[in-house]
Amino acid sequence: MKDSTFQPIHEIGYSELKKKLDTYKGMSESDMINDTGDDAVIFSSGAEDIYSISSVIFLEGVHFDLTYHPLNHLGYKIVTAVVSDIYAMNTKPFQLLVNIAVPNMHSVEMVEKFYEGVDAACKDYQVQITGGDTTASHQLLAISATATGKGKKDKVIYRHGCKIGDLICVTGDYGAAIAGLRILMREKSEWKERGDYQFNPDFESYEYVIKRQLYPAARMDVIDMFEEKRIYPDSMTGVTQGLVNAIKNIANASSLGAELFLPAIPISLETRRVADEMKEDVDKYAFYGGEDYELLFTFPENKIGELEDFFDDFAVIGKMTRQKDLLKINTGGDETIHIEL
Amino acid sequence: MKDSTFQPIHEIGYSELKKKLDTYKGMSESDMINDTGDDAVIFSSGAEDIYSISSVIFLEGVHFDLTYHPLNHLGYKIVTAVVSDIYAMNTKPFQLLVNIAVPNMHSVEMVEKFYEGVDAACKDYQVQITGGDTTASHQLLAISATATGKGKKDKVIYRHGCKIGDLICVTGDYGAAIAGLRILMREKSEWKERGDYQFNPDFESYEYVIKRQLYPAARMDVIDMFEEKRIYPDSMTGVTQGLVNAIKNIANASSLGAELFLPAIPISLETRRVADEMKEDVDKYAFYGGEDYELLFTFPENKIGELEDFFDDFAVIGKMTRQKDLLKINTGGDETIHIEL
Repeated sequence: MKDSTFQPIHEIGYSELKKKLDTYKGMSESDMINDTGDDAVIFSSGAEDIYSISSVIFLEGVHFDLTYHPLNHLGYKIVTAVVSDIYAMNTKPFQLLVNIAVPNMHSVEMVEKFYEGVDAACKDYQVQITGGDTTASHQLLAISATATGKGKKDKVIYRHGCKIGDLICVTGDYGAAIAGLRILMREKSEWKERGDYQFNPDFESYEYVIKRQLYPAARMDVIDMFEEKRIYPDSMTGVTQGLVNAIKNIANASSLGAELFLPAIPISLETRRVADEMKEDVDKYAFYGGEDYELLFTFPENKIGELEDFFDDFAVIGKMTRQKDLLKINTGGDETIHIEL
Repeated sequence: MKDSTFQPIHEIGYSELKKKLDTYKGMSESDMINDTGDDAVIFSSGAEDIYSISSVIFLEGVHFDLTYHPLNHLGYKIVTAVVSDIYAMNTKPFQLLVNIAVPNMHSVEMVEKFYEGVDAACKDYQVQITGGDTTASHQLLAISATATGKGKKDKVIYRHGCKIGDLICVTGDYGAAIAGLRILMREKSEWKERGDYQFNPDFESYEYVIKRQLYPAARMDVIDMFEEKRIYPDSMTGVTQGLVNAIKNIANASSLGAELFLPAIPISLETRRVADEMKEDVDKYAFYGGEDYELLFTFPENKIGELEDFFDDFAVIGKMTRQKDLLKINTGGDETIHIEL
């Protein structure tokens, strides 16, 4: 008996699977000369353009857990992860390659579900899906995604370029993705302990943090805003591995240090509540949690008012200092924390 | 006690590991504006250039077996696999991103060994290594590689473009990589059965086929020759999944069929010997074995003499025919084999 809504990959093989996946195109892009269906993807170039490229790899059991990660959200998330690196250079992604290694007892529909998420993300970020490798795996799903972006040479923003006294600005809020992960892991282990299929995990009170973990978005809007308003930071990086790592990126690249004002770091109430429940330090979530996919950038103090005039989803959390390799954290109380960068 | 020649990754962590790996640069490339050490890689473009991009993923246990695959050879092989797609478009690779997911009980030296192979390949193919993702894995090594290439718009060679009567040409010989794999698998199972550490696998009589499996090279020389002699095929594809798949690629892309003359297919004596020992059909090795990393291209009959004048490492194995989706194989005897494309 064959269930038409669940067809194992081994029934059709990887070539047929790839054909099905090739129908997901994301957003069509004018620079593409060919796309899927050749040995490599070909795209053209304008004389003043520069290109950016970035790649990530996600493994089941390390970067995601299929017991609670819906496959379409996973597809969306890996695109967010890779395009957020492209945005972090003030460039815009236009092309995506996805390699997927999947056990052949998985269903075709599962892989299509994953691609639906990739496709939705590519439509949101205006990126064309241009193919990639579709191959077997023994047990675990492994995925890699590579995005190519485009920009103007004099508008690329690097990690280096910030100066002493520059203000450190961040978009969005921090620590929510790790808070979401904590909740998902707690409910999963509760469910396993009980061995009870009636068990109803409590996700409703944690909607925001869970969404930030499973289905995060990258900050295309910020890059669009820079372009529209013609206001550009001195330096920029993506916040993908926590705030400390992001600050380290820009400080090291300019041989500077940094000082943070802890109470200024944007952390959502829901994230704070989760940390309280877990009896953990919410600042650690923000510093080291990762997967926020927000942007951190620096502006000279006299330019910040200009930015504030038309953009308010950012916070000034500190400034760049002379003392190389040192991150000083002003807690707002008597204590000062020193972290070596 | 710490053995300085074997340092587990967990002792230094993935960031430090990445720093070590960032020292492998392959060949330095003038188009690169930045490379490792930013959120994404930036490269510039010339007005007449087009770019090509391709990506592959290799999983331990599926695409390679570390019991017999030396890590430096594995590094070389994944680069060969991805640049061969770039050459197959008549473009030249100049940049490579490598993502590696590796269990943290693996040693730093193992990963460095792998990168030595990547580096050696990138030097041979004149490609710059521009970073990538370095992350954890549970048990198995997973690697993906993405290469970017460059070419002239009017010199790109696609899978489509061949005409009825065009001669089908192939470089190198076929089926050797699968023959090498057969030998490696046989010796491994012998070794496991015996459970004998004194067991000395017989590899000497199989040097060529084993090299083709573990340490294959891509055909940069052919692309250089096309450029130097200004002679270009009508259509081209890489032979990575066997000859039948490659012929299918070009035939389908031009809505044509093909006819092959079986005795004309280049197969090395060593490959034939392995097939005999295994009591297997050597033609199947060539048709379906894969991992040859050779090129298949088509030329009009009246142009082939020109190519033969200065290049001899190719064979004419058949021609393109009108009958769409059909591959006719002339065995040289009474029999004709028909394969649906």
